[in-house]
Amino acid sequence: MTGDAPGPGPAPDDGLPPLVDHHCHGVLRGELDDAAFTAHLTEADGPPAAGTTFFDTQTGFAVRRWCPPLLGLPAHCPPDRYLARRRELGPAETRRRLLAATGIGTYLVDTGLPGDLTGPAETAGAGGGTGHEVVRLEALAERVAVGARDAEAFTDALDHAVRDAARTAVAFKTVAAYRHGLALDPRPPAPDAVHTAVRAWLAAGAPRLTDPVLLRHLVWLAVATGRPLQLHTGFGDPDLRLDHADPALLTDLVRATADTGTDLVLLHCYPYHRQAGYLASVFPHVYADIGLTLTHTGPRAAALLAEFLELTPFGKLLFSTDAYGLPELYVVGAALFRTALAAVLGDWTATGAWSAADAGRVGALIAADNARRVYGLGGG
Amino acid sequence: MTGDAPGPGPAPDDGLPPLVDHHCHGVLRGELDDAAFTAHLTEADGPPAAGTTFFDTQTGFAVRRWCPPLLGLPAHCPPDRYLARRRELGPAETRRRLLAATGIGTYLVDTGLPGDLTGPAETAGAGGGTGHEVVRLEALAERVAVGARDAEAFTDALDHAVRDAARTAVAFKTVAAYRHGLALDPRPPAPDAVHTAVRAWLAAGAPRLTDPVLLRHLVWLAVATGRPLQLHTGFGDPDLRLDHADPALLTDLVRATADTGTDLVLLHCYPYHRQAGYLASVFPHVYADIGLTLTHTGPRAAALLAEFLELTPFGKLLFSTDAYGLPELYVVGAALFRTALAAVLGDWTATGAWSAADAGRVGALIAADNARRVYGLGGG
Amino acid sequence: MTGDAPGPGPAPDDGLPPLVDHHCHGVLRGELDDAAFTAHLTEADGPPAAGTTFFDTQTGFAVRRWCPPLLGLPAHCPPDRYLARRRELGPAETRRRLLAATGIGTYLVDTGLPGDLTGPAETAGAGGGTGHEVVRLEALAERVAVGARDAEAFTDALDHAVRDAARTAVAFKTVAAYRHGLALDPRPPAPDAVHTAVRAWLAAGAPRLTDPVLLRHLVWLAVATGRPLQLHTGFGDPDLRLDHADPALLTDLVRATADTGTDLVLLHCYPYHRQAGYLASVFPHVYADIGLTLTHTGPRAAALLAEFLELTPFGKLLFSTDAYGLPELYVVGAALFRTALAAVLGDWTATGAWSAADAGRVGALIAADNARRVYGLGGG
Repeated sequence: MTGDAPGPGPAPDDGLPPLVDHHCHGVLRGELDDAAFTAHLTEADGPPAAGTTFFDTQTGFAVRRWCPPLLGLPAHCPPDRYLARRRELGPAETRRRLLAATGIGTYLVDTGLPGDLTGPAETAGAGGGTGHEVVRLEALAERVAVGARDAEAFTDALDHAVRDAARTAVAFKTVAAYRHGLALDPRPPAPDAVHTAVRAWLAAGAPRLTDPVLLRHLVWLAVATGRPLQLHTGFGDPDLRLDHADPALLTDLVRATADTGTDLVLLHCYPYHRQAGYLASVFPHVYADIGLTLTHTGPRAAALLAEFLELTPFGKLLFSTDAYGLPELYVVGAALFRTALAAVLGDWTATGAWSAADAGRVGALIAADNARRVYGLGGG
Repeated sequence: MTGDAPGPGPAPDDGLPPLVDHHCHGVLRGELDDAAFTAHLTEADGPPAAGTTFFDTQTGFAVRRWCPPLLGLPAHCPPDRYLARRRELGPAETRRRLLAATGIGTYLVDTGLPGDLTGPAETAGAGGGTGHEVVRLEALAERVAVGARDAEAFTDALDHAVRDAARTAVAFKTVAAYRHGLALDPRPPAPDAVHTAVRAWLAAGAPRLTDPVLLRHLVWLAVATGRPLQLHTGFGDPDLRLDHADPALLTDLVRATADTGTDLVLLHCYPYHRQAGYLASVFPHVYADIGLTLTHTGPRAAALLAEFLELTPFGKLLFSTDAYGLPELYVVGAALFRTALAAVLGDWTATGAWSAADAGRVGALIAADNARRVYGLGGG
Repeated sequence: MTGDAPGPGPAPDDGLPPLVDHHCHGVLRGELDDAAFTAHLTEADGPPAAGTTFFDTQTGFAVRRWCPPLLGLPAHCPPDRYLARRRELGPAETRRRLLAATGIGTYLVDTGLPGDLTGPAETAGAGGGTGHEVVRLEALAERVAVGARDAEAFTDALDHAVRDAARTAVAFKTVAAYRHGLALDPRPPAPDAVHTAVRAWLAAGAPRLTDPVLLRHLVWLAVATGRPLQLHTGFGDPDLRLDHADPALLTDLVRATADTGTDLVLLHCYPYHRQAGYLASVFPHVYADIGLTLTHTGPRAAALLAEFLELTPFGKLLFSTDAYGLPELYVVGAALFRTALAAVLGDWTATGAWSAADAGRVGALIAADNARRVYGLGGG
């Protein structure tokens, strides 16, 4: 297992190909104080409740299980000791040791989050892998709006920016789930409606983009490029309304995009992952992602992976870590995926439900091959 | 276990009575080409995504586990080899061998699906069992509409057709979940509203029936007969909007029908099966069905049966396969039910949570006795 | 294990501190006939379906597993024999024997249910523990309305009654989920709106309180006291609309109360316990409760506890039984919690996912320490 060997080591030898982490974020470059470190263990955006700590979560326990041995400490050592060792090594060496042990070969990095974060190449470089960019649509629009002369100029510039991004990025991502919820009108908005919405938004100083007309416009601009579109669904930060992030709410958009040739990748999904699996099972262009869900649920990762595998076709499920800020989250996301996969497929082959050959093939599909095919990464 | 013996054999000897499959569809009579075969492994209605196959699903793997041995091949043999063997035997012999091995004694066949399908007697005959008809309300109404002179004539004819059907059918079924969603006004529609809706529908050439007034009218016509009413809930074909098929949306209709003496059977339910179990636990006339859910989830069938058994009273849960088109789906549905039941109840008796005597009794209830009581099938 | 020893005995010796049952109801004082006994095994409010019995449920089986040995009978003995023995001992001795074996040291009793029920001190006394009161807001308002002169007088009296209750009660509880559903406007209602609603309600004779303005007014009166507020969410009696009791519907109220300093405890939660865990993970003042859910799901309690522990921070999950009427439900609730906790944490330590020291600490948090901190109970 990844975390049992002291110090950094080679990628785990469990028969899986180098992982493709098809959705993650960069690593914070600087030194982190303890509060900043623990804040990245949770999706909460404030301090923990009095008398509690973010280390007392599955994420905290998983970090303490898998990461201390990679820095030369015993698994489950106290948080303070781990944090002290981390400071001793410094952020660059910590990052290098941790990322070297994940066995992730390819990183698809959503570059739309704020902070002094490593980009795709730098993230991948620490682990000896390859990086690609995923462009977050709302962040792109907000950048384009800075200094836009008027609505026409903005609309043109946005159109160009999306098409430009499609030349180098491997995918787009929308966080409409956060900004409005997924119960969007599925149709491309009419040009007039877009212009009216743009004018109003720019007149207000282009604040955080939440207008559903603009969110839909971004989605359809991205769909037109043919690049896969990642959609946040399910749990996340507290500015999200969970029941408005049920991927089943996307059904009409899924139908509306069925003939475009563009793939939709439902990110995270929890606790609506069975709904996501259903959509992936009946719509050819829909895929599901296990990231975030496995990374944050510790020893429950196997049970959740099994729930994903009820309806999701095996060619439709994709590994990711959704790691953000801490290199520890790459370690945990990869280690939990590996152990969950081994547990679930081991159980199914032991009872004869699956053949060992099929299990090996499906493991590779989820770990890497599906992502290679969907994002056109080549190799294998 | 069903699938381990080479060639067709007697029903499994696991202590269960002959199964009552209280919801299934006929078997396709003719030869199937490979694409038609694989299309029946999924609820999707188009081709699989590029680079994927419908065999790479729990349903596909389950067919490869349980069915090849019944046709003289090793379990998990490649799809092509299985399909070749199937062609070699021909559809009649394939059907005979497969259905003979399910241990299903009684088939309640929903006759409302299109295609050259076996009817109740013919379906049951291949396996040496008994067949009964379940009448799909929307299909009945669409048939009655053909050649209806006017709205009055149609309404009268429909009324007679439902009452006629109740004399021979064991149950009715509604697919209002597909046609409108389950958030229906729970009250019987007023006669005036029905006539207005009928006139509009007939004037439009009586297309696929989706008018909520007519769907409610059908439900209440069926309820008035006293025959159990099966309601599609949960997942299914892609023309369904999943979140509109949550059985919790039926709560008001459940309350409105509480004093009618008619039982409601919630079909499939997944991923809202816990909601269905709750309704079955607090409303005497509500029952829940495991079909489709177990048939399509392979080695997850045990976990899902266990989830059904959290709140569903043991006298309220019914086995079915929801098999449609392929005799393989009867094999898989029955085998997964048997293995899931043995695993779940075996576990609960091993820990002392249940007594072995209770486990045996509850197994027989779900397998057959509950359906016999609800549908008035007699025997045991 | 609790139920294996013949006759009443000391609290189980599994390393847990005396349990804090942070949400339960009193025990019926009088003799119960068989129908009244079985009616308390279920959340249904009428007789069981023909051919079924409420004993054929997880609750019924769990009572038969854990309780007969405490009354000198073998586990899983037939219901009739158990009921006969119960009558032989009489209600007081039955209660004494059963409650003595739970290991519950502190009872937080919701006193808002009708019936000849033991109060906090009497409930706790039978088991040698301490009792505290939880005041149900809607019942309090309905009591205050009796004899209220006019709207002004009622509003003043209610205000005083809530503040008075806060001096002695450890918490408030709202059943807005039953009365209206949880999709409430999150803001405190304006005084004018409250007065209008009160006038209309009193003019109608102050029937069962269902006006959403008054329900919100009660919530905000309670929040202003600083006492924790328990909110019914998830399943319950059949007068509840399940999909309107999804705790995710409370998100806006959770946000609106974030800076009040008052904690919100989401009761029961099933089948939306993953949603509850998410809310507890991102909002510091939100807690989740396992009661009712574990008590009614028998050998599934471990699986459900594990699902709660996916996202719920370990300092945010609270044990309860939600026992009502029958002392058996305290036994079952406590025994299922103990066995579930031992199974889940035993599994996670066996695989190395958790350390044994952490597992022991988290077990004590859920069993007692979290409730002691949230309700300010002192001790440990």
